[in-house]
Amino acid sequence: IYTPALPGKEVAYSTERVSDVARVLARMGNAIAIRCYGDPVDWVYGGANELVRNFAYWADIPVLNMECDKYHPFQGLADVFTVKEKFGTFDGVKFVMSWAYSPSIHKPRAVPQSAIIAATMMGMDVVLARPPEMELDPEVIAACNEHAGKTGGSFAVSEDFANAARGAHVVYPKAWAATPFFKPPVGSDDAEATQVIFDRHKDWKATPEYMELADKEAIYLHCLPADRGWEVEDAVLDNTDPESGWRSAAFDEAENRLHVQKAVMSLVMG
Amino acid sequence: IYTPALPGKEVAYSTERVSDVARVLARMGNAIAIRCYGDPVDWVYGGANELVRNFAYWADIPVLNMECDKYHPFQGLADVFTVKEKFGTFDGVKFVMSWAYSPSIHKPRAVPQSAIIAATMMGMDVVLARPPEMELDPEVIAACNEHAGKTGGSFAVSEDFANAARGAHVVYPKAWAATPFFKPPVGSDDAEATQVIFDRHKDWKATPEYMELADKEAIYLHCLPADRGWEVEDAVLDNTDPESGWRSAAFDEAENRLHVQKAVMSLVMG
Amino acid sequence: IYTPALPGKEVAYSTERVSDVARVLARMGNAIAIRCYGDPVDWVYGGANELVRNFAYWADIPVLNMECDKYHPFQGLADVFTVKEKFGTFDGVKFVMSWAYSPSIHKPRAVPQSAIIAATMMGMDVVLARPPEMELDPEVIAACNEHAGKTGGSFAVSEDFANAARGAHVVYPKAWAATPFFKPPVGSDDAEATQVIFDRHKDWKATPEYMELADKEAIYLHCLPADRGWEVEDAVLDNTDPESGWRSAAFDEAENRLHVQKAVMSLVMG
Repeated sequence: IYTPALPGKEVAYSTERVSDVARVLARMGNAIAIRCYGDPVDWVYGGANELVRNFAYWADIPVLNMECDKYHPFQGLADVFTVKEKFGTFDGVKFVMSWAYSPSIHKPRAVPQSAIIAATMMGMDVVLARPPEMELDPEVIAACNEHAGKTGGSFAVSEDFANAARGAHVVYPKAWAATPFFKPPVGSDDAEATQVIFDRHKDWKATPEYMELADKEAIYLHCLPADRGWEVEDAVLDNTDPESGWRSAAFDEAENRLHVQKAVMSLVMG
Repeated sequence: IYTPALPGKEVAYSTERVSDVARVLARMGNAIAIRCYGDPVDWVYGGANELVRNFAYWADIPVLNMECDKYHPFQGLADVFTVKEKFGTFDGVKFVMSWAYSPSIHKPRAVPQSAIIAATMMGMDVVLARPPEMELDPEVIAACNEHAGKTGGSFAVSEDFANAARGAHVVYPKAWAATPFFKPPVGSDDAEATQVIFDRHKDWKATPEYMELADKEAIYLHCLPADRGWEVEDAVLDNTDPESGWRSAAFDEAENRLHVQKAVMSLVMG
Repeated sequence: IYTPALPGKEVAYSTERVSDVARVLARMGNAIAIRCYGDPVDWVYGGANELVRNFAYWADIPVLNMECDKYHPFQGLADVFTVKEKFGTFDGVKFVMSWAYSPSIHKPRAVPQSAIIAATMMGMDVVLARPPEMELDPEVIAACNEHAGKTGGSFAVSEDFANAARGAHVVYPKAWAATPFFKPPVGSDDAEATQVIFDRHKDWKATPEYMELADKEAIYLHCLPADRGWEVEDAVLDNTDPESGWRSAAFDEAENRLHVQKAVMSLVMG
């Protein structure tokens, strides 16, 4: 097996068409788990998702998305599972997915997109907070609005980091790439412009002061790895004491990803 | 454990003599499976086979050849097993191992050599079709002639791509390196000459027209990955419909490699 | 998970703080086994050990040292286990850990340090033989002296390769880096000087003549891979015949590492 490639991107003796890889693996195993984003698809937004879907088209065994450039479904499941574990309910829970600063601009959108999809599906009151240049996929935003309408929850977009956090039960501040970073037609393939945009928003950081804006029992989430000192201060990420009021649930969230993955594998492979 | 090397090719702190690797692994596991050809032995024909044999000499547990530069025994087993599965017999089955064009000249000989060895062993009527410059190892040819003499099957070499396929029940068109590509004494280490030779034979390609020359129930085999558009057209490789007359059995063949590997492991490790 | 790094050595989007890696892995598995030395810690002596200890601080599951830049505990256990297996006792057994020449100067100290720690702990009569420039860690030397005082065994340092081997039951000649090779403050980061020092001691080699100096039932140990022709001649390493008088026990020692690792895993993970 060589590097899987879609028709038109094949190179003799170094790639193999996805249709062939998928069909051969489907003869040999019980599921195919794929993680693909960023450089292997040259940051063309949606390219990795297309690859995963093409695997699913050809394989007659389950294909598990371990993170593509659009979605990270297992992370989204782990996120909402952690909320349920901590609060016992989704009703009236304010869930704030927020952008946060990182010196690295190479950040896919999959985590925030799956987080707000899962959170709106569960009926939470969801706020997406982000600088103007950090839009997410309009399809994802549309899906969130649709979920909110159906569940009795709500969905709003804010450009105010601090204000969005007020009264939140869950805050999830995390970097993702600005729109210009992606290749056309989504972006303009402009890493320099992206860096400039990023550096305008260094104050989007999870600090203890930020946590104080939230509910006094609020939890901090992060999919990890976190860029310490930029996205989050140590005093937030490392405050895991359940008696301390607001606290970090990031390590519980990491453990929960394993549990939801096992649950899904059991459902689709059982 | 470092990179295994034979005496005379050792480098301090980066290689380890095969005798030592083999003896240590033999203390730790139940079998050693080795795949080695091409660059790691610098395309010196037979170098990888010597390495595998040296492992077998030193290890007192089974050594499984997962493909060296002379043989690919599991592939050969999968090939003939697939024939048996499709036709129920080897008697009177015409098996055509044919060269096919690829833009990449870096192609080992192991697959065709093990295919014709296995096919003649099973007593099929075997034809090796290839351009004049794509000879296979004379030892392999001698073995095939010997098998044919013993089994009542037959073995012939042809330089005519189309003619060889006439009436075939099994066609197996696949690229392998031309003789000049290998290092002396087998070849002349001449990649440029090899490329020129290759490019003279672009018409050696598995097309629907080619398949029509074969038996109306013929199967197409390929060890995969295939160089689509060069070795084979999509319309051949992807025509897996068992009701369609001639058809591709390449994905069944891929699955069968797993089964024969398990069978051999069970025999030698049980 | 990215490359684990200690605070102060973190790089956004390419490293992850050890505290985070350790805590996440601790949620997912039953133990963490780490091998780290040399280039990943830039040959700063002790840097890898600090990393392993930091993992142990943060993880609430066992952390197993598979070799750091100070210690190789499993190797030390395998070494003394092999002695016990061959001689049935540690009492009165003379164990000689000796430096030996290799053309490569990139050799960590962990193996000899753990060997003399384990051997003195077991109460053997231990000699460390080395050229003057190949000191080991003073802390390790102090520990060996302390063990010898407690157990009734002995510990001595010699600069005489041949003399140290006289009457030895166990000889263990192996290269390790000279002190100048390490970064300050331990060394002077001087690879050239180290090479010059090494090349002055090419006669520190395990030959049959060397083995004749030892007890007539002496065993030769080496953690493997060995630099054949430099550290040891084939006639020594390959003489594994138990009837031959002195002999190589290096392959038994390799097997024993697996057994002691399983034993420790059973103890700490059971």
